[in-house]
Amino acid sequence: MQRYFVLNNQIRGNHIYIFGDDYHHIKNVMRMSIHDKALFCNQEGIVYLGSLESITKNEVVFTILEQLDDNRELSIEVVIAHGLVKRPKQEEVIRRLVELGASKYIPVLMERSIVKIEKSSDPKKERLERIVKEASEQCHRNRLLEITDIYSFEQLLKLREQFDLALYAYEEKRNLKSFKDILRSFTGKNILVLVGPEGGISDREVKLLEDHNFLPIGLGPRILRTETAPLYIMSAISYELELGENNES
Amino acid sequence: MQRYFVLNNQIRGNHIYIFGDDYHHIKNVMRMSIHDKALFCNQEGIVYLGSLESITKNEVVFTILEQLDDNRELSIEVVIAHGLVKRPKQEEVIRRLVELGASKYIPVLMERSIVKIEKSSDPKKERLERIVKEASEQCHRNRLLEITDIYSFEQLLKLREQFDLALYAYEEKRNLKSFKDILRSFTGKNILVLVGPEGGISDREVKLLEDHNFLPIGLGPRILRTETAPLYIMSAISYELELGENNES
Repeated sequence: MQRYFVLNNQIRGNHIYIFGDDYHHIKNVMRMSIHDKALFCNQEGIVYLGSLESITKNEVVFTILEQLDDNRELSIEVVIAHGLVKRPKQEEVIRRLVELGASKYIPVLMERSIVKIEKSSDPKKERLERIVKEASEQCHRNRLLEITDIYSFEQLLKLREQFDLALYAYEEKRNLKSFKDILRSFTGKNILVLVGPEGGISDREVKLLEDHNFLPIGLGPRILRTETAPLYIMSAISYELELGENNES
Repeated sequence: MQRYFVLNNQIRGNHIYIFGDDYHHIKNVMRMSIHDKALFCNQEGIVYLGSLESITKNEVVFTILEQLDDNRELSIEVVIAHGLVKRPKQEEVIRRLVELGASKYIPVLMERSIVKIEKSSDPKKERLERIVKEASEQCHRNRLLEITDIYSFEQLLKLREQFDLALYAYEEKRNLKSFKDILRSFTGKNILVLVGPEGGISDREVKLLEDHNFLPIGLGPRILRTETAPLYIMSAISYELELGENNES
């Protein structure tokens, strides 16, 4: 069944009010008519089953039939901080991170980022948010991946204290604690993971990360690209936390 | 250090003979000169350190200095069979599968494949093979991912008997055996995993897969796209088999 994300203020009493892109989608793409059903997620990730009640020139109204018990979110919050990469790569990563259950994506301006920017606000952020919304509807998420403005490296370091655990993917061979050991013993609520840009993480940045209690993790013997590492990390987290043992997955 | 894949017959005695694309790359892109070093993988995945000895108009010759102990391959063979999808998606998946360590990629013509083909040989296969070679060099693999011609579904079913384990990703809710349980108890040498095309796997195909002893696996509560599921599977396999417990990863 089709699924839409709505703001809490679009739900009033027993009704859900739809306009804009979703209105267009329901009317012209799905061509829904009276009594057709759809699912709606509010900003807390609660899912409602709605039945189409009326369509006007710029609004469609659904009546809430019931609230569903349908949680498909990871049990912990995973925030991916990603060295700033070129736009097509960024879009690909974001699309996949939505499916894989990440909570937030933070583009970080790092020393070896090839992409240069003038200011931290991104004029094309609206496009990214549309990608997130579409991908979230398709993969049946309850919450939208949040995309932040571009962070400086110092802003990222400051963010550390809000997290129970902070990691960074690091390919240099050292005595790394295993990502598997770390995940299996983790009992907190949120994780921040940094993946560097194409050129990797500079020595100065590694030093700062260590000073701020970010732990390095290895992701196996092959060198993963900057657009593959976040998917590996999220897949591993889902595998570890979401796939059952001794029963169904 | 730069890494190249060579055929066994390019290695004769103590020398490695390079021509074609790699010749061009060494001469014009890397601009190497006498005594510069590079790594060479033969078809068995053995890695040699070579020193440039001579460059002629169409050939460059390296002298082998030593054979390196540098194995970055998964300990098992994982073959991904993938319902035929459109070319850009296929290329993206193949690029990632190289990094994630898959052995072979088999495009399979399935009932719900949107892409239609006339014959199983693919005129653009050469392009895919170039993508594989480049990606393999970058991620430091020892072996090249093999890409087969397009299989019919019946050919895929026949392939089953060559594998210790065969799985298919299936999103329908049922009493699935967990992918995690299956992986952790696996002691064989090779795994075949099927991921359906955009439209999924048809009921008839599911029936045939079951008849041929393919096991369904779930990949978590969210619906993964056909281009994401293979990456999840390979990441999970790497995580399970390659990341250490109680020591370095």
